[in-house]
Amino acid sequence: MRRFPLVLACSLLLLAPLARAADALLAPQVRATADGLIAAALDDELAMELVTSLTTEVGPRLAGTAQEARARDWAVARLTDLGFANVRVEPFEVPLWVRGDERAEILEPFPQPLAVTALGGSTSTGPKGVAGEIVAFPSLAALQAAPDGSLAGRIVFVDEPMTRTQDGSGYGVAVAKRRATAYEAERLGAVGALIRSVGTDSHRFPHTGQMRRLTEGQGGGVPTAALSAPDADQLRRALARADSVTVRLVLTPQLLPPSRSGNVVAEIPGREAPEDIVLAGAHLDAWDLGTGAVDDGAGVGIVVAAARLLKALPEAPRRTVRVVLFGAEEVGLVGAKAYAEQHAEALDRHVIAAESDFGAGRIWRFDTAVGPEALATTAAIRAVLHPLGIGPGSNTARGGPDLKYLREAGVPVAGLIQNGWDYFDLHHTPDDTLDKIDPAALAQNVAAYAAFLYLAAEVETDFRN
Amino acid sequence: MRRFPLVLACSLLLLAPLARAADALLAPQVRATADGLIAAALDDELAMELVTSLTTEVGPRLAGTAQEARARDWAVARLTDLGFANVRVEPFEVPLWVRGDERAEILEPFPQPLAVTALGGSTSTGPKGVAGEIVAFPSLAALQAAPDGSLAGRIVFVDEPMTRTQDGSGYGVAVAKRRATAYEAERLGAVGALIRSVGTDSHRFPHTGQMRRLTEGQGGGVPTAALSAPDADQLRRALARADSVTVRLVLTPQLLPPSRSGNVVAEIPGREAPEDIVLAGAHLDAWDLGTGAVDDGAGVGIVVAAARLLKALPEAPRRTVRVVLFGAEEVGLVGAKAYAEQHAEALDRHVIAAESDFGAGRIWRFDTAVGPEALATTAAIRAVLHPLGIGPGSNTARGGPDLKYLREAGVPVAGLIQNGWDYFDLHHTPDDTLDKIDPAALAQNVAAYAAFLYLAAEVETDFRN
Repeated sequence: MRRFPLVLACSLLLLAPLARAADALLAPQVRATADGLIAAALDDELAMELVTSLTTEVGPRLAGTAQEARARDWAVARLTDLGFANVRVEPFEVPLWVRGDERAEILEPFPQPLAVTALGGSTSTGPKGVAGEIVAFPSLAALQAAPDGSLAGRIVFVDEPMTRTQDGSGYGVAVAKRRATAYEAERLGAVGALIRSVGTDSHRFPHTGQMRRLTEGQGGGVPTAALSAPDADQLRRALARADSVTVRLVLTPQLLPPSRSGNVVAEIPGREAPEDIVLAGAHLDAWDLGTGAVDDGAGVGIVVAAARLLKALPEAPRRTVRVVLFGAEEVGLVGAKAYAEQHAEALDRHVIAAESDFGAGRIWRFDTAVGPEALATTAAIRAVLHPLGIGPGSNTARGGPDLKYLREAGVPVAGLIQNGWDYFDLHHTPDDTLDKIDPAALAQNVAAYAAFLYLAAEVETDFRN
Repeated sequence: MRRFPLVLACSLLLLAPLARAADALLAPQVRATADGLIAAALDDELAMELVTSLTTEVGPRLAGTAQEARARDWAVARLTDLGFANVRVEPFEVPLWVRGDERAEILEPFPQPLAVTALGGSTSTGPKGVAGEIVAFPSLAALQAAPDGSLAGRIVFVDEPMTRTQDGSGYGVAVAKRRATAYEAERLGAVGALIRSVGTDSHRFPHTGQMRRLTEGQGGGVPTAALSAPDADQLRRALARADSVTVRLVLTPQLLPPSRSGNVVAEIPGREAPEDIVLAGAHLDAWDLGTGAVDDGAGVGIVVAAARLLKALPEAPRRTVRVVLFGAEEVGLVGAKAYAEQHAEALDRHVIAAESDFGAGRIWRFDTAVGPEALATTAAIRAVLHPLGIGPGSNTARGGPDLKYLREAGVPVAGLIQNGWDYFDLHHTPDDTLDKIDPAALAQNVAAYAAFLYLAAEVETDFRN
C-alpha cells in the first residue's frame, strides 16, 4: 500500500511530458482516431461475445485434438463473418499427448485419495499404477542435488511454493519444477513424481501444464502429476506425522502419432504499406481440463475485437494488421515455431508484434522492446493509453510466449501487461471458465489493443531503430 | 452497509440491560469463571489441532465406511487421552451408499465434458450411462408442474440458483431440488437428472448431498447428479444456442448392505446433578469428496476443545456436560435418530442441547428455543457472550441438524449461529479442506461454546419452563 502514493506521484509527473510527446509525434487526426477507438472499445461487447462463443461452443481444445480443429473452424468462420481479409489456416504437425485415468491415494498410514492431474507429456504408470514411499524435497534445487540412483522405488514429492505477483514473475521460477521434476526423478531411480501445483490458489484443483517441451524431446521421465495446493498441504502434514508415507499413483496418458494443428491468420491489409505487418497474437488451443476462458479465450476475444474496431475505420491503417491465433501453444509453442518458420522470409517486414496471453485482468503497464529511436513513438503511444490506467513500463518486453521466435529473430515487440494477480489461481485448471472474466476489464484490454494496433500501423516509425 | 450503524446502535442499547441481567442472575464467581473460560479459549489451540488431526489422519469419512470407523477410533482415543469420562461408541446400522464412476458430457452440438457428482443415494446408470436430450426447468416448482410421463427418454436439468445468506436460510429453499428431483424426473419418465449444485460458489466443484433420506425409503428415482455452477452456466448457454442439446451421464454408485456406524459420546459428570445433561454435539462423518474440515471437523474441534476447558476447571459444573459426536449425519440424520431412540428414557433429563455444524465462521448470534421463564437466564448467557461479537437472536432456534429428534421430543436447544456467508462455497465439495479454516475464528467459537456450556451446566434454570 505504501507504494501507491509514490507510483501515483511518478505517474502524474510523467503524464505531462508524455502528453506533449504524443501531441508532437501523432498528428491530431491520428490521436483523435486512437481516442475514438478507445471510446468505442469500452462500449463494445464483441470480445466477451467471442470468448463466450469459443468456450461454450468448442470448450476445451487441446493441441492436436478434434476439439482444437473445431476451434480453428470456429475461428475461420468468425473471422470471415467479421469481414477480415486473407482468413486462412496455416497448418503444421504437433505431437499428440492425451490424458488418461489419473488418481492418487495415500496407502499408509492415513489412507485417503489425493487430487492429482498428469503433467502434459507425462509417461504412463500403466493401469495398475505405481506405489512407493514418498521422499519430499522443498525445492527443485534440492531434488537436483540428490545423488543419482538414490531414490530407487520411491516417489518424489517436490513441495516448492509459487510466489503470487502482479506481473507473473513468480511463474518463471515456479515452472522450473514442472519442467524438470520427471527427468530428475528418473535420474534418481524413482518410480513416479508429484509436484505441488504451479499455482497460487488454495482450491482442490491440481494445475496441469507441459513438462519439457515435446519439440525438445518426447517421452522420458517418470510418470509425474501435480497435486492441488490443499493436497500438497495434506501430504506435507502426513509426512510430518508419520515415519513413512506410501502413495499409489495411477496415470495412463498416451503419446499418439503426431497430429494436425494450425495457426489461424486474418488481416486488415495496409492502406499504404501492406507488406509491413503489425501482428496481434493470442492462442487458440487450451488445456483439456477447463474451457480455456482466461487461457486464452480472453486473448482471442481481445485481439479479434480490437482488430475489428480498426476494420470499421473509414480507411485502413497504413500498414497491415495481422491477427494470428496460434495453435499448440500450451504443448511447447509449436504454432509459434511453425509461424516463424513459415514466415521466415517476411519476418523483417514484421514491424512490431504483441500477444494477449495472460488472462483477462486489466492492462496496467505498457512495455516495449524496440530500438532507441523508436522510444519517442512508444512514449507517444503510452500517453494515448494512459487514460485507461496504463502506466509506464520497461523496454525489455518479452511480448508473449508465441512471440518468442519472432523476438529472437529481431522483431520488435510490445507488452500490454495485464494484472495477473489472480491469473495463476485458475491457470491450467478445470476452473478456467467463462464466469471468471470481468467484461469491463476485458473491454479495457480491447481499448488498449485497438489504440496500440492502430497507432503502430499508422505511424511511419521503424521500431527496430 | 447501511444497516451496520443501526445494528451497532441497537447492540449498544441492548448491551446495558443485558449486562445487568447477567449480573443479577449469575453469581460473581460464575460470571468470572465464564469470562475466564473465554479468555483461555481465545489462546487455546486444541480445536485447530483436533480438526487438523482428524482431517489429516482420517480424511474423508462417509457414513458406514471403514473411514468413518477410523474416525470413531480416532475420537475414542482422543477423548480418552483428554481425560473425559464414560467415553464410548453407541453403535447403530446405516444404509451404505458408495460412489462409483461419475462423468457427463455434452454429445451434441458442442461436445465437451461436464463436471458432475452423484447425489447421495442416487441410482446407477450402469457403466454405459444414459443419453438423452436435456429439458431444462428454472425451478423445482416448474418440474413438479410437468405432467406425468411427459419427458420419456429425456434428461431433466433443474437450473435453480441458491441465495447467499449469512444465516444459511438460502439452503432450506435450495435443498428441496436436491431431495426431490430424482423422484420427480422418474415420474416424468426421464432417464436421468442434473441439478445446478446446491451451493453459492462459482468454482468447478459440483456439490454432493443426500437425496431423499435413506431412512425414509431406499433406492428409487432416476440417476441424478449435481453440476458445478460453471457447468450449469455452460449447459444453460448451450441450450440458448441450440435447438437441442444431448448429454450422456454415467453414474455407477452402489447401495450395499447396511453397515455399522455409531455415535461417540464423552462426558464431564456433573458435580451436583449428574443425571442432568447439557449436550454439545457435532458430527463425525463427512462426505467422501473433501476431508470434512468445515463440515464438520470444525464442529468436532469446537465442542471437544470447549468441553476440555470445562474439564480443566477446579471443579466440574453442577450438571453433566455430554459431548456427542454423531455418526451418519450426512446420509439422513441416522445417528441423531439412533441417539434419540437409545436415550429415549433420559431425554427429559437433557437440560439443553447445542450443535456446531455450520462451518468454521465466527458466531454472530445467540438463538434459543427455551421456555418463557428461562429467557432471563439465556439473556444473561447472551450478555456473557456479547464481548465475542455475538448479538441477540430469536427464541425459535433449531439447534443443529442432529438435534432434530431431541427438539421434537421437547429438549430445549440453543443456536450459537455461525457466519455462513461462505459456507456453501465449500459445503459437500472436494474443496472442504483444512486450509479453509481461520484459527482465530475457530477459537472464537470455542470461547462461545465453553462459556455457554459452563453456564448452562452451572445454573439451576429449567430451560423447559
